[in-house]
Amino acid sequence: MIKLVLLRHGESQWNRENRFTGWRDIDLTEKGVSEACTAGQLMKDEGLTFDIAFTSVLKRAIRTLWNALDAMDLMWIPVEKNWRLNERHYGALQGLNKSETAELHGEEQVLVWRRSYDTPPPALEKTDERYPGNDPRYAGLDPAEIPVSECLKDTVGRFLPFWESTIVPQIKADKNVLIVAHGNSLRALVKHLDGISEEDIVGLNIPTGIPLVYELDDDLKPIRNYYLGDQEAAAKAAAAVANQAKR
Amino acid sequence: MIKLVLLRHGESQWNRENRFTGWRDIDLTEKGVSEACTAGQLMKDEGLTFDIAFTSVLKRAIRTLWNALDAMDLMWIPVEKNWRLNERHYGALQGLNKSETAELHGEEQVLVWRRSYDTPPPALEKTDERYPGNDPRYAGLDPAEIPVSECLKDTVGRFLPFWESTIVPQIKADKNVLIVAHGNSLRALVKHLDGISEEDIVGLNIPTGIPLVYELDDDLKPIRNYYLGDQEAAAKAAAAVANQAKR
Repeated sequence: MIKLVLLRHGESQWNRENRFTGWRDIDLTEKGVSEACTAGQLMKDEGLTFDIAFTSVLKRAIRTLWNALDAMDLMWIPVEKNWRLNERHYGALQGLNKSETAELHGEEQVLVWRRSYDTPPPALEKTDERYPGNDPRYAGLDPAEIPVSECLKDTVGRFLPFWESTIVPQIKADKNVLIVAHGNSLRALVKHLDGISEEDIVGLNIPTGIPLVYELDDDLKPIRNYYLGDQEAAAKAAAAVANQAKR
Repeated sequence: MIKLVLLRHGESQWNRENRFTGWRDIDLTEKGVSEACTAGQLMKDEGLTFDIAFTSVLKRAIRTLWNALDAMDLMWIPVEKNWRLNERHYGALQGLNKSETAELHGEEQVLVWRRSYDTPPPALEKTDERYPGNDPRYAGLDPAEIPVSECLKDTVGRFLPFWESTIVPQIKADKNVLIVAHGNSLRALVKHLDGISEEDIVGLNIPTGIPLVYELDDDLKPIRNYYLGDQEAAAKAAAAVANQAKR
């Protein structure tokens, strides 16, 4: 039985401030760190162990992973960080408050930017200090790969090649894999695993800091999936994510 | 100008208790964590940056690296962990207090075990719970590679292949490399870099938590090396290491 575990990073400072974060490298709050430790403890209590972990190049995901590995006494396992696991790039919205943006542009427009499958938010100018091309962590990328804004379709498009080329071979080699990433990069994976339509993926929300276990067959088709810990809390947390841009 | 930085982990619980640690996976003390943060800050203030870091599979080194990377805002760089950077395996002495061992076996015998180049301490039995062969982190090793005790020569012997095969190519590809490891695995590297004799390496002590910068020419021959921060403190810390088994 293959088990794959997905974990969205704990609460970040901008989750708390209800701001669009995207590729901005915002750290966890204390609550986020505590969520990460609890997630690690939950996985340990469940008897899960891991041979390798994957995460993004953003510190809220990396710190979540570090704290979870620490709680599981697995600090020594290999960790691979890759930009393809980053959060969806939110373009010019990065840094803006979600409710204020809803007041400015209307709830409906913000919902389109947040949840439409193929409409990206307004793009960043390349002269913008938020443009990732000036950040050394993206120096190895082909300039064409560096986003100025992404819709979920774009995130799926840059995440799946890494999934196929790098994560799948590890799973097929019988490695227990942990992926610590972001709301939208994990949504990209869940869409792929569960074959969710472009319409329905919009309504799917992944709460922060709660391990999501996938049991997969040999063809990596899901047999079932479940959140660890308090199921009701997980459902409530997911609903809260959905309501962030309500005025 | 190539700069390579070596960092010995901060104070561990067994450094504090003056016990032989070797491959036992003992964590940092609070002071050790603070040393790691300070080391990161020193490197940052020096204007150093890194493209990749190497460390052992022992948490005192990994946590030192994590805290240093955090202080430098470099959590995102690739980190490779490998058992070949582990501390020297201290055989059956692992866990024993250094002064008590000196009282039991004599200062001279302990100095031989600690500092002779080619006399290993008494070996572990493979039935000993301290035998690394039962630890999942060493499951991928050839059984012949799993030590039951090591002299410094053995540590040099298993560290250098990793240096040559994995670290040197990174340096030659113009990557800025940080190595966070242990007293004896770093001594193995310093012996190699500086061409120190088997006799003289015995007298060389590397203090915990103080970055040691090597400036290298294109053939990786050292031009000079220096500790960051308070030079006097570094010298004092090195002398303290040398005196740990005095009664």
